[in-house]
Amino acid sequence: MTASPLRLGEIAERFGLALRGDADAVIDGVATLAEAGPGRIGFLANPRYRSQLADARAAAVVLREADADAWSGAALIAADPYVAFARIATLFERIPAAVPGVHASAVVAPGARVDPGASIGPLCVIEDGAVVEAGAVLGPHCVIGPGCTIGAQSRLVARVTLVQDVTLGRRVLIHPGAVLGADGFGLAFDRDHWIKVPQLGGVRIGDDCEIGANTTIDRGALGDTVLAEDVRLDNQIQVAHNVVIGAHTALAGCAAVAGSASIGRYCLIGGGAGILGHLSIADRVTVTAMSLVTHSIREPGEYSSGTPIQPNRDWRRNAARFKHLDELARRVGAVEKESKS
Amino acid sequence: MTASPLRLGEIAERFGLALRGDADAVIDGVATLAEAGPGRIGFLANPRYRSQLADARAAAVVLREADADAWSGAALIAADPYVAFARIATLFERIPAAVPGVHASAVVAPGARVDPGASIGPLCVIEDGAVVEAGAVLGPHCVIGPGCTIGAQSRLVARVTLVQDVTLGRRVLIHPGAVLGADGFGLAFDRDHWIKVPQLGGVRIGDDCEIGANTTIDRGALGDTVLAEDVRLDNQIQVAHNVVIGAHTALAGCAAVAGSASIGRYCLIGGGAGILGHLSIADRVTVTAMSLVTHSIREPGEYSSGTPIQPNRDWRRNAARFKHLDELARRVGAVEKESKS
Amino acid sequence: MTASPLRLGEIAERFGLALRGDADAVIDGVATLAEAGPGRIGFLANPRYRSQLADARAAAVVLREADADAWSGAALIAADPYVAFARIATLFERIPAAVPGVHASAVVAPGARVDPGASIGPLCVIEDGAVVEAGAVLGPHCVIGPGCTIGAQSRLVARVTLVQDVTLGRRVLIHPGAVLGADGFGLAFDRDHWIKVPQLGGVRIGDDCEIGANTTIDRGALGDTVLAEDVRLDNQIQVAHNVVIGAHTALAGCAAVAGSASIGRYCLIGGGAGILGHLSIADRVTVTAMSLVTHSIREPGEYSSGTPIQPNRDWRRNAARFKHLDELARRVGAVEKESKS
Repeated sequence: MTASPLRLGEIAERFGLALRGDADAVIDGVATLAEAGPGRIGFLANPRYRSQLADARAAAVVLREADADAWSGAALIAADPYVAFARIATLFERIPAAVPGVHASAVVAPGARVDPGASIGPLCVIEDGAVVEAGAVLGPHCVIGPGCTIGAQSRLVARVTLVQDVTLGRRVLIHPGAVLGADGFGLAFDRDHWIKVPQLGGVRIGDDCEIGANTTIDRGALGDTVLAEDVRLDNQIQVAHNVVIGAHTALAGCAAVAGSASIGRYCLIGGGAGILGHLSIADRVTVTAMSLVTHSIREPGEYSSGTPIQPNRDWRRNAARFKHLDELARRVGAVEKESKS
Repeated sequence: MTASPLRLGEIAERFGLALRGDADAVIDGVATLAEAGPGRIGFLANPRYRSQLADARAAAVVLREADADAWSGAALIAADPYVAFARIATLFERIPAAVPGVHASAVVAPGARVDPGASIGPLCVIEDGAVVEAGAVLGPHCVIGPGCTIGAQSRLVARVTLVQDVTLGRRVLIHPGAVLGADGFGLAFDRDHWIKVPQLGGVRIGDDCEIGANTTIDRGALGDTVLAEDVRLDNQIQVAHNVVIGAHTALAGCAAVAGSASIGRYCLIGGGAGILGHLSIADRVTVTAMSLVTHSIREPGEYSSGTPIQPNRDWRRNAARFKHLDELARRVGAVEKESKS
Repeated sequence: MTASPLRLGEIAERFGLALRGDADAVIDGVATLAEAGPGRIGFLANPRYRSQLADARAAAVVLREADADAWSGAALIAADPYVAFARIATLFERIPAAVPGVHASAVVAPGARVDPGASIGPLCVIEDGAVVEAGAVLGPHCVIGPGCTIGAQSRLVARVTLVQDVTLGRRVLIHPGAVLGADGFGLAFDRDHWIKVPQLGGVRIGDDCEIGANTTIDRGALGDTVLAEDVRLDNQIQVAHNVVIGAHTALAGCAAVAGSASIGRYCLIGGGAGILGHLSIADRVTVTAMSLVTHSIREPGEYSSGTPIQPNRDWRRNAARFKHLDELARRVGAVEKESKS
């Protein structure tokens, strides 16, 4: 980390944290509690790890008031130490500087509109009818198709493709390999072969969304695929046509949402989880990793499917029994009847 | 939608549909039945939604003869309204015009052969020994490696990579981020480390296939990986080396097929489903979402694995029991024996 | 295959294999035992397929001493025929020649350091502070961000993106669409919305690793994401921030490893398998396809989860019973009690 060092007092002040210890201590980075040494701020978010404070060598620790007695060094007291730490860590991020203007190697169509305050990286392609607003940053190798708009202060890290009719809000962050606005998977079966159903809708991404590497979000068939504000998608996620995802919902890596499904606000969808098409999921629903949602979920809460991991030999025996579970249940019913008679 | 408006009578005639109502009505787009307003054609494919006709405001509705009495407005009568609608919708697609020729920023090797009627977009790379046939369209950022052939009228939307020895038929459509012809995952274990097994085969894609965004299809180890005609792959699908997929089969998003598996014709593979290597699946097999196929399937029909989604508290109890299901079954057997004695 | 033909004797000598038959036989390629004809070497790795030797027409067969009696033609005797075949096959690979130097269309920042013996393909972008060592080959469309190092003799086939602070060892092979060093999925929940946790770590990839098409490996949050030497990742794999994977471990397609999980040496992770965050997996653990690892695994061996594939009608009945498995087990307990009383 090569960002400029800061005084501990400045950091406390900037984020409104109570400081205990030397305000003039020089801080040049952040680290985990176990690894933070001189000049580094560590943090204790989970009281379970309180005992780690005994061996900590951090220049300062971000922690809760309730944990402050377990640490004799410099401290920043926070109601939510993880949130405070996340804020402090931004001071030490090295995001490559983006120079406003269009790189000489980029290909910008005459009918595209790029704000002079936007930054278009090497070998980007901006097609006719695309709009890039002020402060937006496109890293190398982005492709922005017709009818797409990149909202102000949004950042496409590198090699992001917006195919057609994709509208990004402000401060949207998209990682490399993501593809937004490709055709949805629309097929009609005509006697003995498929015909393609034209995909005519777009994609709308709200403010402050983050979209992971190699994630795909298809355009709507008719109408749009929509992510409300502050939706967070990890890597390798598939969002099919006409899906709607509510504000502040987060999906972990490799999750997949089939066509026209609707997910509420403040949901947490685990890694590799699947949601079938045309379902509706209420607000504040958690789906655990690799579960498959096969019907709409009306109530908030945590939902799961699957079976536990076991040594293969045990699993084989149990799995073989699963194939006859209905029969087993009937046999139990029969025995019950008999034992009652 | 900005395509030119059409008269309703023209549309009926073009697709051989019976028209009821004003042939001169001007149509400028399509929409869902719920959203179609003036100038827009809606459709009723599923008789279950017949009641929606009461509130419909569409300029015309595509529907079955049997549903025509429930709608008093203009109608196009079709044996299969969804197929008819898909055809009509193509009239209102806005596919960016492709100008024949090679964009000035593309890098075409001297040993590549590009038909003058093909269109090569900005920043494409066409390597020695690649062939692009007439009417093929390559959007921006495509990479076509040695030994690859793009059949006539095929379209690579943007940023598609064909690594080596990939042959596309005619009218193949490939979405951004797809990678065809990368090395298969071939490893031999040599005492204490892996050695790579060279991947020497290619990929052959039949006419009229569609391949989704960020989907990967590996080249064969020896011999080719093959998709017959009219195979439809959604996004984020993995097709390993030497897989063979029969004509008219469709795979939904995130499905994965391991090496040398063979899938029949007219199969439907659900989202996130997995097929182990060296298996064979008969024609007309449906595999439901996120199922894992662990043995060959000889009979047509629908196949599934997994457990249903439940509230986590209930699921935990049931999952814990699954770990001892074999023992439970033995206990049932013992009780049966006892109750019979 | 157009590599130069070789004499069988030369091949035997190069790889230290015992030769039976005509040392002057001309070999121009390799093939499966079933397909190998004149000029081609086939192999028999699995004694189960011994009977195929009866119909084989290969110019020579690589096989075990113990199988040699079942084949009367020319043979190369190997302790491990698959390993020997893999080595022989490399003679017939056609890897596009890489000319040292930087392609005229590549964009190399002044602050990047590219060894004169490295090859930088068309339309690559090498950013300030990146290092490319001798003999490294970057195919077209690679993006190498700040703080990244490509070790000697490594090969990025095409369109590989290293975002930031990614260090590759020597002889690393990466297939198209892979993204290394993108931000991990770090979020802190601040009352009613997410804030991003800055991702400040890097990625370290050991010597001789292979990384598949469209695979993603995120940078660490604090500290690095690490693959030891000879780790083999298939396509479409997700490796989250701060994951550590031990030497000689292989992951099949679509596997996913959540944040801070640690996988041992010589593990085999099946296709589509998932590993939850912060878990630890011992050396020599095999996880079967599409299993979900929900707790740390301390003992070597094979582990599984899931249920077997069945005809959907049967599966539905069994799955419905799974929802009440705990209750069923209690009923069995009650019957047992009764029958004993």
